[in-house]
Amino acid sequence: MQSILRHWQQAVPNDRFAHLVRDTGRAFVRSLQLRLNRHDVPFGYWAFLRILWEADGLTQRELSDRAGVMEPTTFIAMKAMEKRGYVKRRRIAGNRRKVFIYLTPRGRALKRRLVPLAQEVNRIGTRGVPAAHMATTRRTLLAILANLGTDDAETAARTRRRAGR
Amino acid sequence: MQSILRHWQQAVPNDRFAHLVRDTGRAFVRSLQLRLNRHDVPFGYWAFLRILWEADGLTQRELSDRAGVMEPTTFIAMKAMEKRGYVKRRRIAGNRRKVFIYLTPRGRALKRRLVPLAQEVNRIGTRGVPAAHMATTRRTLLAILANLGTDDAETAARTRRRAGR
Repeated sequence: MQSILRHWQQAVPNDRFAHLVRDTGRAFVRSLQLRLNRHDVPFGYWAFLRILWEADGLTQRELSDRAGVMEPTTFIAMKAMEKRGYVKRRRIAGNRRKVFIYLTPRGRALKRRLVPLAQEVNRIGTRGVPAAHMATTRRTLLAILANLGTDDAETAARTRRRAGR
Repeated sequence: MQSILRHWQQAVPNDRFAHLVRDTGRAFVRSLQLRLNRHDVPFGYWAFLRILWEADGLTQRELSDRAGVMEPTTFIAMKAMEKRGYVKRRRIAGNRRKVFIYLTPRGRALKRRLVPLAQEVNRIGTRGVPAAHMATTRRTLLAILANLGTDDAETAARTRRRAGR
């Protein structure tokens, strides 16, 4: 960690900005991971729990889309989370292929224990950063998301045209 | 992508800042991935190539440390990259356990083709963002890295003390 920091303090040319964003994202993950471990919750469950706390009863497919992962990843996580008693997987009569995921009371109760850990990590990470700098940073990151969203759509369309599809 | 953007434009409370940073990091990765695919280079090779272009002849262990991944991940990637003719894996007489990784001329030549793709993604992502905002954002992210680095060290020490180690 200290060596990553030295690396960035020495030189952050604009063309390495993406790398700085990703290192910061990873540092947030690591700090949250350390805290989740103390509560014996694997970090891999975190993204799914956060989605289910807001929208319970999604299909496994919808949950995968929202988490931005492939369906087999969600399947494996849901099996493990069901074993721990955090979720129930249910099929609805007449549609055997769709699997719906529901939180158990135990899975729902995790929210009160775990969300404060994420809030703590955010608070510690941004400690001492002036509110105005946070606002500018947020606005910059939103602008980047918008720019890259437009670019992705264009790049994908270009690739399809080249492939003659 | 558009739905992620809408989500963030609607509300970005400070306690979700980590999430915004990670979504931005992932957007950068996705844009680079689209471009690397067109050059038929899996994104998984990117982190290793970038390190080797700067420091050729590392051991597999050192390469793993710098890439922030477990050694088996590096082992699998190096086998695949050797097959493609990008690297050579060599043991040194008298030390059978240490595996050194060397770029081939072909692996080295990728730098001129691939680095411009990363530069392009950074340029497109930050398009229209004033230089002053970029500077503030960079400073904010560096402050966060420093804060979380200190926190990690403290948290790890606390966990060790609790475990009585």
